[in-house]
Amino acid sequence: MPIRSEKLALQLENPFKLSYGATTIRENVLLHLDKAIGEAAVVPYYGETPERIIGYFESLPPLPDPFFLEDALDALPPSESAAARAAADIALHDLWGKQLDQPLYKLWGLNPAHAPQNSFTVAMADDETSYRERLRSAQKYPLIKLKLGSGTPETDLDLVRIAREELPNRLCVDANGAWTAEQGIKAIPLLAEIGVIFIEQPVAKEDFEGWRDLKTHLPAHIPPLIADESVQGVESVPHLMGLVDGINIKLAKCGGLRPARQMIALARAYGMQVMIGCMIETSVAITAAAHLAPLADYADLDGNLLITNDPYRGVKIENERIVLPDAPGLGVERCVE
Amino acid sequence: MPIRSEKLALQLENPFKLSYGATTIRENVLLHLDKAIGEAAVVPYYGETPERIIGYFESLPPLPDPFFLEDALDALPPSESAAARAAADIALHDLWGKQLDQPLYKLWGLNPAHAPQNSFTVAMADDETSYRERLRSAQKYPLIKLKLGSGTPETDLDLVRIAREELPNRLCVDANGAWTAEQGIKAIPLLAEIGVIFIEQPVAKEDFEGWRDLKTHLPAHIPPLIADESVQGVESVPHLMGLVDGINIKLAKCGGLRPARQMIALARAYGMQVMIGCMIETSVAITAAAHLAPLADYADLDGNLLITNDPYRGVKIENERIVLPDAPGLGVERCVE
Repeated sequence: MPIRSEKLALQLENPFKLSYGATTIRENVLLHLDKAIGEAAVVPYYGETPERIIGYFESLPPLPDPFFLEDALDALPPSESAAARAAADIALHDLWGKQLDQPLYKLWGLNPAHAPQNSFTVAMADDETSYRERLRSAQKYPLIKLKLGSGTPETDLDLVRIAREELPNRLCVDANGAWTAEQGIKAIPLLAEIGVIFIEQPVAKEDFEGWRDLKTHLPAHIPPLIADESVQGVESVPHLMGLVDGINIKLAKCGGLRPARQMIALARAYGMQVMIGCMIETSVAITAAAHLAPLADYADLDGNLLITNDPYRGVKIENERIVLPDAPGLGVERCVE
Repeated sequence: MPIRSEKLALQLENPFKLSYGATTIRENVLLHLDKAIGEAAVVPYYGETPERIIGYFESLPPLPDPFFLEDALDALPPSESAAARAAADIALHDLWGKQLDQPLYKLWGLNPAHAPQNSFTVAMADDETSYRERLRSAQKYPLIKLKLGSGTPETDLDLVRIAREELPNRLCVDANGAWTAEQGIKAIPLLAEIGVIFIEQPVAKEDFEGWRDLKTHLPAHIPPLIADESVQGVESVPHLMGLVDGINIKLAKCGGLRPARQMIALARAYGMQVMIGCMIETSVAITAAAHLAPLADYADLDGNLLITNDPYRGVKIENERIVLPDAPGLGVERCVE
């Protein structure tokens, strides 16, 4: 099966200011596997590099006939890079769907009409004026996710209050693990008062004690608390049972569509909500994730909307809804060479 | 969608003597749903009756387009009868596969070559001579499951010793919940010495304390202990974590293929083994279960081999292997009217 790696330099519409640092360009790597395609997001804070990902692609053994998808997935070698494994998993799903001549969501029996409203991320800005501008430019998106982690819970609350002033849209927040449990216990009821619909990763990645403190000390009727960095692959889900209200599943974090579906099954067995999230990615990886959206409570699939040079076309957002393509496999097509 | 119920009187090749009682005929109910088919096993000890099952079929509301299988499954009303729900679930999967023009195992990406060896059940007999005859007539099956529950663990061990004398075949046993934990702690190491490869349901259905005692007091290197009656639907699996080595999943017990697949996902997450089992059923329900066999460690799909008037043809056992049909959906066809 012919394999080819392709490095892409993705141009960000706005520099992305996070609690981790700022960035204006992202280099992702595409995997071309026969007539199928996958994508690996190069996320610096997950230790990913294009070289490591390309090394993985080049190390792939001859794969079994992806007509037997599970076998082909089982034959993928392990890798430290979840994004590289995700790319191979996505490409094999694409190939399988093309061989069976059906889009993935149909091969899973899913109704695309059940995909939740998609959220659009508004990053922090250098000053209040440009933040307000950025918010106004996102006005058309019905559900807006505010990135927090501005320094203190107080300045974070200011960002949410500014957003509430500027926009009537539904708001949710991603604290990116910036708070201690003690800070969260104070800030979260205030966010609830402002009407924030969920709060993502209030405490640090490894702070399981913090998650437990939030669960113990917060009142019952607050917005759901969703783990993002605290959840990685399938094996990380059972540790969060009883500590979080939901998990944010990202293909580049968990290793692809198969582990993502296993995580959804586990989350549902534990009564957790499910968010399908993404990295800065083209329509290849975003469309792959979007095929799972009918199984999710929240979709945060805006990585392709944040770049200006997406070479692919796939999932669309129309009238605020996620619209899945109907072509076989992922259903994406290249629109620029 | 046109719906029709059909009662079948299944003739058993040998009267089935169990710890629950004996039986020579079984009445199952087929569900004809448009061009698709499902089957409900009428298992008296699960409180099933043909009337209750037919009542469920007749109560089915208009179902959504099974092109969106998950929606159609979600639209099935609840029922006390897991077998009735299983029949509807099987028929919807059959219809979905026919609409997508693919056999179910391909829609799940499974390689049928990974199906485990099938086991064949030898029931108890009225006397030793006829038991020995029954064993000899099962000689062609490489893996034989002995039904125990003859009265005492001592007489059960005698059955296994007789089987070992008569046959070189691989043996496993199903105690049907006939023992106390104390009896199991004595009997199981002796079964291990005879080379029995697994022991199903040593203690009673509700005896979770018994399962715990077995786990605590038996040595580490004994054959796996598999729950059958102690496991029902998806929600019963988490209670068995750490208590059993595996679970026997039967469509008529859990409500169909979708819950069965959820149970497999949970079992794997808990490191449990998986057996796909069955009731006395025609090739309709047996073939449905067989599509899941590539995901299992053990297959106990002999319900259709125990009846003499199976009106359908589907999964076959060839050279000791499970051979799945390649036609769309379940892939079964009617061979007598």
